[in-house]
Amino acid sequence: MIVRDFEDIVKNQRNRVVSDAQWTSVRMLLAEDGMGFSFHITFLDAGSEHTFEYKNHFESVYCLQGTGSITDLATGDTHDIRPGVMYALDKHDRHILRAKDELVMACCFNPPVTGTEVHRQDGSYAAPESVEA
Amino acid sequence: MIVRDFEDIVKNQRNRVVSDAQWTSVRMLLAEDGMGFSFHITFLDAGSEHTFEYKNHFESVYCLQGTGSITDLATGDTHDIRPGVMYALDKHDRHILRAKDELVMACCFNPPVTGTEVHRQDGSYAAPESVEA
Repeated sequence: MIVRDFEDIVKNQRNRVVSDAQWTSVRMLLAEDGMGFSFHITFLDAGSEHTFEYKNHFESVYCLQGTGSITDLATGDTHDIRPGVMYALDKHDRHILRAKDELVMACCFNPPVTGTEVHRQDGSYAAPESVEA
Repeated sequence: MIVRDFEDIVKNQRNRVVSDAQWTSVRMLLAEDGMGFSFHITFLDAGSEHTFEYKNHFESVYCLQGTGSITDLATGDTHDIRPGVMYALDKHDRHILRAKDELVMACCFNPPVTGTEVHRQDGSYAAPESVEA
């Protein structure tokens, strides 16, 4: 059994805290934990806008705090984000996520993120095998 | 892209709300959603105690609200549960979960739950293939 405390990770396990332009993600579970998915608590800065496309991953995102919106770039549809709203990128959907207030999101990735990925110019993470290569 | 609202599921999609002895689980994602994991918001009644052993699943559980404890029945170790604490059953660990106050937990299962499982006497869910059989 793995037991981890968000506050402890933030203070003492900085290798599990990843920041990029206007977001920070606390990786509660990574690929190395052997669960077959990773689980992150991710913070997106108030007023920020992000274009992502996880070509090699499925991701679900459940809003814990904050408000914003998501636009599906395939359809043009925009959905409000508020606590209790979840979106799931079941088609590796290219999208724009906008944070009006700071968003706090609980995210699951399949396959699990290793923790060493960087967003590529197209908004994706590399597939696991190419990350490890 | 799938977009779902917790409040809408509770009001209008009762097939995604499962209750058993002293717990209720709102299934934001199930096997049919094709993400390779399921994602649930689960409520455990104040004062309740649960013995679970997911022999056929990996589960991670992140505490959103409430306090309680978890005991790993293999080691006897007990850990406090409070918001921000996550446990992950990477060894299909048999455990007792106790809710002091009502616990609200964000749960991920791999393989994904279909929504039709029931806890068997040993605290487990059947493997997906036997559920579907």
